Amino acid sequence: MKREVPISKAKWIMEPGCVLLVTSGESGNANVMTISWQTPIRSGEPCHVLLVINPARYTCELIMKSGQLVINVPGSDLLGQVHRAGTVSGREVDKFERLGLTAVPAQKVAPPLIDECAAHLECEVERNVELGHHRLLVCRVVRAVADDAYFNGTWDPERFHTLHYLGGKRYGLLCNSTEA
Amino acid sequence: MKREVPISKAKWIMEPGCVLLVTSGESGNANVMTISWQTPIRSGEPCHVLLVINPARYTCELIMKSGQLVINVPGSDLLGQVHRAGTVSGREVDKFERLGLTAVPAQKVAPPLIDECAAHLECEVERNVELGHHRLLVCRVVRAVADDAYFNGTWDPERFHTLHYLGGKRYGLLCNSTEA
Repeated sequence: MKREVPISKAKWIMEPGCVLLVTSGESGNANVMTISWQTPIRSGEPCHVLLVINPARYTCELIMKSGQLVINVPGSDLLGQVHRAGTVSGREVDKFERLGLTAVPAQKVAPPLIDECAAHLECEVERNVELGHHRLLVCRVVRAVADDAYFNGTWDPERFHTLHYLGGKRYGLLCNSTEA
Repeated sequence: MKREVPISKAKWIMEPGCVLLVTSGESGNANVMTISWQTPIRSGEPCHVLLVINPARYTCELIMKSGQLVINVPGSDLLGQVHRAGTVSGREVDKFERLGLTAVPAQKVAPPLIDECAAHLECEVERNVELGHHRLLVCRVVRAVADDAYFNGTWDPERFHTLHYLGGKRYGLLCNSTEA
């Protein structure tokens, strides 16, 4: 069941460095983009995370208009959709329809959540840093939700396999965990 | 055997979002720090990567002095050292000695490589972005090396398990891969 995650614990949703599906725009006209370049940048509350995005992407255009986005965490069951979302543009197709994903309303921002994903971070963009080739988006997490079957303060890799991009069509799976 | 990796392919060393050991300072007086907050920010050549670091850390002080660092990729065999490197300060102890790690000279920068790691990115800091609580270091990779038993243009998770931080003493292991 999906439950609220305290903002102070939200960064653990992204910490493993996994591939994300970012939603932008508004319900009925929203877009989906696969992002592998991400990192938390601040622990505790407020919680800040960073996304790296190509300014030419449709998602970047939508985010710049509204200043809002949702980070969704897909598991290995969504591998096909994750890869295909990275190979077509939302300027040409409705990616929710094309990929068979379900948009459900977020609570604090306009872009929808992807129902099939296991966790969601609703975000406001606080700052963007222009690097020419790419843009760094510093995002403040305003709401976090995760499926408690897989995430309980941290991911359970034995039950939920985050995806980690290796290049081409290949993705690594987080399958085990160990204690230092 | 460790072999040169073309700069245009260097970002694949960090792409899975794994935990890194960053070396700073100079041989004989070098420091080691565990970093989980990282991402590539530019494909191709030049290759840029981003590290997020707390300005209070000794490593940050050393990097600001020289503008150089080395990113080393540890596997699951170094789990104990990775965790302990994140719990003591190089201001107080020689972490190479304390952790039983071997420093070997880099070719293009002053900080040493950690011989026990499977891949290395020798880096120059090109820009740093102050966020108050943390600093974003935009690094240009000037040399990349990887063990060809585990990395051949991409990691082989079946043979080499990168570490992905889950919180506390717990680390996820990249153990499998799959094709979309």
